[in-house]
Amino acid sequence: MYHDIEYRVPYADTDQMGVVYYANYLEYFERSRTEMLRSAGLPYGELEKRGLILPVSEAYCKYHAPARYDDLLTLRSWVKEIKGVRMVIASEVRRGNELLVSGYVTLVSVNPDRKVIRMSNDLIECCKQFFYDPENEK
Amino acid sequence: MYHDIEYRVPYADTDQMGVVYYANYLEYFERSRTEMLRSAGLPYGELEKRGLILPVSEAYCKYHAPARYDDLLTLRSWVKEIKGVRMVIASEVRRGNELLVSGYVTLVSVNPDRKVIRMSNDLIECCKQFFYDPENEK
Amino acid sequence: MYHDIEYRVPYADTDQMGVVYYANYLEYFERSRTEMLRSAGLPYGELEKRGLILPVSEAYCKYHAPARYDDLLTLRSWVKEIKGVRMVIASEVRRGNELLVSGYVTLVSVNPDRKVIRMSNDLIECCKQFFYDPENEK
Amino acid sequence: MYHDIEYRVPYADTDQMGVVYYANYLEYFERSRTEMLRSAGLPYGELEKRGLILPVSEAYCKYHAPARYDDLLTLRSWVKEIKGVRMVIASEVRRGNELLVSGYVTLVSVNPDRKVIRMSNDLIECCKQFFYDPENEK
Repeated sequence: MYHDIEYRVPYADTDQMGVVYYANYLEYFERSRTEMLRSAGLPYGELEKRGLILPVSEAYCKYHAPARYDDLLTLRSWVKEIKGVRMVIASEVRRGNELLVSGYVTLVSVNPDRKVIRMSNDLIECCKQFFYDPENEK
Repeated sequence: MYHDIEYRVPYADTDQMGVVYYANYLEYFERSRTEMLRSAGLPYGELEKRGLILPVSEAYCKYHAPARYDDLLTLRSWVKEIKGVRMVIASEVRRGNELLVSGYVTLVSVNPDRKVIRMSNDLIECCKQFFYDPENEK
Repeated sequence: MYHDIEYRVPYADTDQMGVVYYANYLEYFERSRTEMLRSAGLPYGELEKRGLILPVSEAYCKYHAPARYDDLLTLRSWVKEIKGVRMVIASEVRRGNELLVSGYVTLVSVNPDRKVIRMSNDLIECCKQFFYDPENEK
Repeated sequence: MYHDIEYRVPYADTDQMGVVYYANYLEYFERSRTEMLRSAGLPYGELEKRGLILPVSEAYCKYHAPARYDDLLTLRSWVKEIKGVRMVIASEVRRGNELLVSGYVTLVSVNPDRKVIRMSNDLIECCKQFFYDPENEK
């Protein structure tokens, strides 16, 4: 299953090409995966309070078509992989059925001293509901 | 005396009107006053290490004309007032001799527990060289 | 009457002081007044299509207390003044009943050639429902 | 040969983890490749005036170590590939000799109607001086 939220594009996010500036989609990915984690029962703020921090170790975006000012976008995320010390979250930005941007980030679990540690079992359990494989849906 | 730095406008800072988005000038003000403080001998990072934090309590911008992509701007700052627990720093954004944006921020000095404390004497001393009154120059 | 929307603070908006960076509130003001205009029946995108552009000529923020990561904020706007060629929109950022930031922006109406023109009557009519005076409510 | 510029990290770019927010590195990549193009004799603004627009079709970042407030970074770019309708620019963010972030963006050349067109020969010629292969340097 994937997780969707809606997001309205402000002027702030656009650039002089009249489209959303390319770096802002990584911010959209963050908004999207944050709400997915909250919906999974594990708000990211909670994880940090427990001493589990998830810095991004890798990020990738493929830009298919531009989002524009005032578009009401769908920000979608799902868990592609979670095991050991890392988690890969796939995200998409859509306008209706049109896919605008797709990508992923890899998160690594560290403790407050920035030492790499294993993902906690409850995080893995909670994330299971957001496992999803778009290929299998076709 | 005032303090000037140069800044090149990236695509990231523009919006679909083809000009720099209005909130970004507050970021320019930050870049400008940071370098003024460094030049005064008191890098802001140093102040924080000594336990003096300077959150912004007020900010004002007057937009005269827009900055555009790839403009090489001059970011100017000077100290308008410093006494007790607060400091007012005026800033301007210029393109050559043309004044684009003018404004100020008020900083309040607090300790790490967010208790308001007096500005330290060495900060006041260091800032004196950047006292300036544009009215007196005319 | 004023207009409220909710907004969740992402990591992207915070700075190393652990609070929302001061320039981002101007972006919040934009989100807030955009939805107020939409609710008044005049989405800003519509105004631009009709040849009415509303650049910001002045912006002011007073910072009372900081917003933090993952806060669910209320972004509030109302029309303080609209006549001739300008419009003043007041905005507030609140966390529950706590006022965090208050301020305003002044918008000037120009045509696509950046010539200052009078606010259109339908814009003035539509905005009337969002006239509000906090002093009168006390 | 690669192209280097210096960049000072402002408060604006940090997040509450005390490091530069991950999306901002794509902005650093933009600053870096813009100055590389200018140095190659083809400022991006010039290209746009000639009707050659270079939207990003793909972006990738690998985060090795975090940049922090007030760091004086080196932003490095070089041309990895340019032929037909696309160009791959590699970028790195360094603090002294330490590699913090590495990645690339793929740019596609389009005309003002967003039709894909071949890279112009003078662009290809100008870029040749910034061909570079880090593997060959070892």
